Amino acid sequence: MEAIAWTGQGLRLLDQTALPAQERYLEARDHRTVAEAIRSLRVRGASLIGIAAAYGLVLAARSLQGRDMAGFLVGLEGAAAELAATRPTAVNLSWALERLLGRARACTSPQQAVAALEEEARSLHLEQMEADRRLAELGASLLPMGAVVLTHCNTGALATGGLGTALGIVRVAWQTGRLSRVYATETRPLLQGARLTAWELWREGIPCTLIVDGAAGALMARCRLDAVVVGADRIAANGDVANKVGTYALALLARAHGVPFYVAAPTSTLDPSTPDGSRIPIEERSPEEVRRVGGASLAPEGVDVLNWAFDVTPAAYVDAIVTERGIARPPYGESLPQLLGGGNEHG
Amino acid sequence: MEAIAWTGQGLRLLDQTALPAQERYLEARDHRTVAEAIRSLRVRGASLIGIAAAYGLVLAARSLQGRDMAGFLVGLEGAAAELAATRPTAVNLSWALERLLGRARACTSPQQAVAALEEEARSLHLEQMEADRRLAELGASLLPMGAVVLTHCNTGALATGGLGTALGIVRVAWQTGRLSRVYATETRPLLQGARLTAWELWREGIPCTLIVDGAAGALMARCRLDAVVVGADRIAANGDVANKVGTYALALLARAHGVPFYVAAPTSTLDPSTPDGSRIPIEERSPEEVRRVGGASLAPEGVDVLNWAFDVTPAAYVDAIVTERGIARPPYGESLPQLLGGGNEHG
Repeated sequence: MEAIAWTGQGLRLLDQTALPAQERYLEARDHRTVAEAIRSLRVRGASLIGIAAAYGLVLAARSLQGRDMAGFLVGLEGAAAELAATRPTAVNLSWALERLLGRARACTSPQQAVAALEEEARSLHLEQMEADRRLAELGASLLPMGAVVLTHCNTGALATGGLGTALGIVRVAWQTGRLSRVYATETRPLLQGARLTAWELWREGIPCTLIVDGAAGALMARCRLDAVVVGADRIAANGDVANKVGTYALALLARAHGVPFYVAAPTSTLDPSTPDGSRIPIEERSPEEVRRVGGASLAPEGVDVLNWAFDVTPAAYVDAIVTERGIARPPYGESLPQLLGGGNEHG
Repeated sequence: MEAIAWTGQGLRLLDQTALPAQERYLEARDHRTVAEAIRSLRVRGASLIGIAAAYGLVLAARSLQGRDMAGFLVGLEGAAAELAATRPTAVNLSWALERLLGRARACTSPQQAVAALEEEARSLHLEQMEADRRLAELGASLLPMGAVVLTHCNTGALATGGLGTALGIVRVAWQTGRLSRVYATETRPLLQGARLTAWELWREGIPCTLIVDGAAGALMARCRLDAVVVGADRIAANGDVANKVGTYALALLARAHGVPFYVAAPTSTLDPSTPDGSRIPIEERSPEEVRRVGGASLAPEGVDVLNWAFDVTPAAYVDAIVTERGIARPPYGESLPQLLGGGNEHG
């Protein structure tokens, strides 16, 4: 199982909408196929869609090689805009595309740029995988031995192409004896917790119990829980965290029960240009995601639906933000710039 | 559409597991069919299962008419125990059965008891419908004009056989111009919000927007909301409220956003013999309810599931408990006994 692989000719993607019933792959040879895969959530997860978009831009660059340099850049920027428009909330997407565009603009010919972009996309991919590993090791150190952890959505290999963020912490904690069990919320509407997280953990033999999203309150009231660990799609300058819808309620519950609430995300998810959560665009997706599951109609056809894919957890409920460069603690307005400036509290 | 009807020969029940796709009825001629219908949620909702169990006991009494009075009562108590064992959390079930058993014990012959039980079950049914109406009128008075309300699970005609509890308030508020919109959570795992509440409101033309359970936090952060109104399956002496799993998180969110949190329940749901929520038995249901929707498998077959059907909202988060006898406010240890004692603050 490999969520993403660059074959040299194209981009091989595991179609996550078919999991866990089928392990099906698609191979993209142009950036529009990549954009469609991101939009339809065949490939998903903040880190992974950044990596996929980077390779998608390489494919676009190849198709533009016949143009002069000015025309090449215009075409490339158009393709980047198409890829960026697929999903609005995760900042990794625009972060990855801007990084590649910057590299292309420094080149003198389309041929040189195509080679440079492929190199840059591969570097970005490797850096994200390495970031996952370091983040996971730092995060695991926050957990007591034999910890019981709750997580939300999918933040594993399927979300990052590496070890995962919150689920990377879970993996390293399991390998080092720090973990005894993971509770995974199913994560409606698209059930990434049930379909992907439970599947990843079950394949690896990590003890996992699935609950509906609404059961987190009963769990915290009735069972021991040592931490809630979630990922992020964008973290504002003040530490407000946009993540999969339902995260905010988990943070409130954790606070009410004295359970530490940790956010795990690579620094590519930090967005210093967004001052706070109120400025983060929240993606609204199709009502059909709520009305139907696997062909089955769950509600009257005509009923109105509000389907926001994300919510914002105020920084005040976040006990730590774990990145590959270190662990930030409140006040995040001070600690996050320190991390981005290269400081590492675990130095 | 009638959720429950006593035909004289038997009990006609709307099979709620088939909604909204099919409006299918079953007719029970013995108490075991009623028990199965309660256990499998063909008939559900705290009030309605109390009414169904009462009629179920009438059917049992008829089949025991050939016995002498002592044998009749032994048989009747056995049938009541079978009916009571179907679901542990809602107190209305044992409340209704105890009421009928008390009536039977005061009779001198099985023939007299059968007639008395049928009369008692009909009275109980009518009283619950009348309680719904009074409760709904009292509750609607709590809402401002043009209110936007969030509700959870199904507490409508399908849950009580009358106007409904929380949804009865919604209905009366709509009829009197106090309501502009209802947000209904889908209520996993069995989707009573999507399948039943959205369906009831949509049939009546009451503006309703469906959201996933996890989206309540985003809703409260981003939209105006004037109240959260939910039902209850059992209310302890101190005001702790057992209700459909997910209710507790809604109460925390409501408190964080200054939104009043109201619980609507007939006094038959009050349980003075249970001192607080920690003593309320919480039903754990089949893992298959979480693993599957329709026939579709949502998670790896082998994955462990924890499926509690209810959670407990501490009294501290409940701004008012609306009953047919009046509106109780904190401290509930004082206000609830006043209501049960016959006092009525709106009297």
